[in-house]
Amino acid sequence: MNMRDPKLANADLSTGRDVRLAARSGRLNGWTAGLAPGYVQGNLAILPREQASDFAEFCRRNPKPCPVIGTSAPGDWRIPELGADFDIRTDLPRYRVWKDGEMIDEPASVEKYWRDDLVAFVIGCSFTFEEALMEQGIPMQHITRGVNVPMYRTSIDCVPAGPFHGPTVVSMRPMTPGNAIRAVQVTSRFPSVHGAPIHIGLPEEIGIKDVSVPDYGDAADMKKGELPVFWACGVTPQAVIAAAKVPFAITHAPGAMVVTDLKNAHLAVL
Amino acid sequence: MNMRDPKLANADLSTGRDVRLAARSGRLNGWTAGLAPGYVQGNLAILPREQASDFAEFCRRNPKPCPVIGTSAPGDWRIPELGADFDIRTDLPRYRVWKDGEMIDEPASVEKYWRDDLVAFVIGCSFTFEEALMEQGIPMQHITRGVNVPMYRTSIDCVPAGPFHGPTVVSMRPMTPGNAIRAVQVTSRFPSVHGAPIHIGLPEEIGIKDVSVPDYGDAADMKKGELPVFWACGVTPQAVIAAAKVPFAITHAPGAMVVTDLKNAHLAVL
Repeated sequence: MNMRDPKLANADLSTGRDVRLAARSGRLNGWTAGLAPGYVQGNLAILPREQASDFAEFCRRNPKPCPVIGTSAPGDWRIPELGADFDIRTDLPRYRVWKDGEMIDEPASVEKYWRDDLVAFVIGCSFTFEEALMEQGIPMQHITRGVNVPMYRTSIDCVPAGPFHGPTVVSMRPMTPGNAIRAVQVTSRFPSVHGAPIHIGLPEEIGIKDVSVPDYGDAADMKKGELPVFWACGVTPQAVIAAAKVPFAITHAPGAMVVTDLKNAHLAVL
Repeated sequence: MNMRDPKLANADLSTGRDVRLAARSGRLNGWTAGLAPGYVQGNLAILPREQASDFAEFCRRNPKPCPVIGTSAPGDWRIPELGADFDIRTDLPRYRVWKDGEMIDEPASVEKYWRDDLVAFVIGCSFTFEEALMEQGIPMQHITRGVNVPMYRTSIDCVPAGPFHGPTVVSMRPMTPGNAIRAVQVTSRFPSVHGAPIHIGLPEEIGIKDVSVPDYGDAADMKKGELPVFWACGVTPQAVIAAAKVPFAITHAPGAMVVTDLKNAHLAVL
């Protein structure tokens, strides 16, 4: 589901605020990849207050897959730390609404689902470190090919909290050993968007039987002389929320991310 | 050749200066590994002024295998930047003296070989980053087993300068993928002692046919779930000097290093 006003050019979507306003007005209903270059995008999870504190603790205990970069106060749709004039109910191009672990709707706005007890969590995503890697001349095969990054459920269990538990999901990017070493250096600077890889080279050691068969996304084309490099992935919290079958939750729709006013470069800790 | 006054305890050799004075007095004629813990040790190359500028340029062009941490003025045996009261002619436990690429002597002092045109180069060594890795709880198998680290000539040619050219020599340490990622982070902080690994996981890509047959040192015991991690090695400049068959050169004897007044921790750039 990737829809958008045909008169809306990428040049009109050059800042986080541009993207949010286009989503809010209904002119942008699809993917955000490649929009607002340089601006931080994030995963969204909205939960009722009753589950929110357990989820916050789950994220704190699992910072590699679940690095929280912004939260809202209960019932408040603003997230000032991520952007001026932010409305988390309308500013994503598309949402998924979940009831007891089942997706019940995939709307372009969640105004009609909003409740006074909802808390929003924005979780860092790999777009930020991918930009940093490409600036170093490290190719991102899935971007070049226009497909999704391959993702895998691993044998690495998250540290549970309340009803939230499950395996760490990882994304994989094939790289030459030299680029893999550089990628460790570059992504270590960005702990709030998954940080350094969590594994490299030996997929079977983390429970991945066949690297050519991802659990989510599209298979990569592994070439001779390349290693698979694995990062903790923002799909982890989504999978955990679905598995917990919480009574009610809202997430972003795949690829339709939160787009913030923060610049990617500002997330670097070094 | 590992000789030492039996009355000389490691506790008497707790600083760089202790080790230098023991070597100078002839009480210590062998290995320096494990002595003066926390102090920077280095490789030594001494060349006549006629070859020294080419060698300096060679090191500048190949900073990963040849990181220079100290030099002397021509004919001067002091290296104040590495230690007070330093005499490069006597302060190593053992030397090798080379003529036209052949080793002609392995003395405990090179006073009788000293000339007014000799320039000393001290080149960072892996002891510094190994200490940092062990402080992180990353095991160093060769140290535990009491053997030498395995080293290999690679297909990665150094950038030549004057008569100096040849392959990059690497050392290899087996590590789990998680430790390998941590090792990239830790050793990246130490560019003056070879810095980050230059290769990981795929030895054949750098011309190593069989990782169980090193060109120097002792084979490692590669376990399931481990990757070979390769660092540029200070044996490179020694091999390059031997191959260049320069009329005259002095180096340290293997394992009998320059021990300085610098602390390992002070070489960290972050």
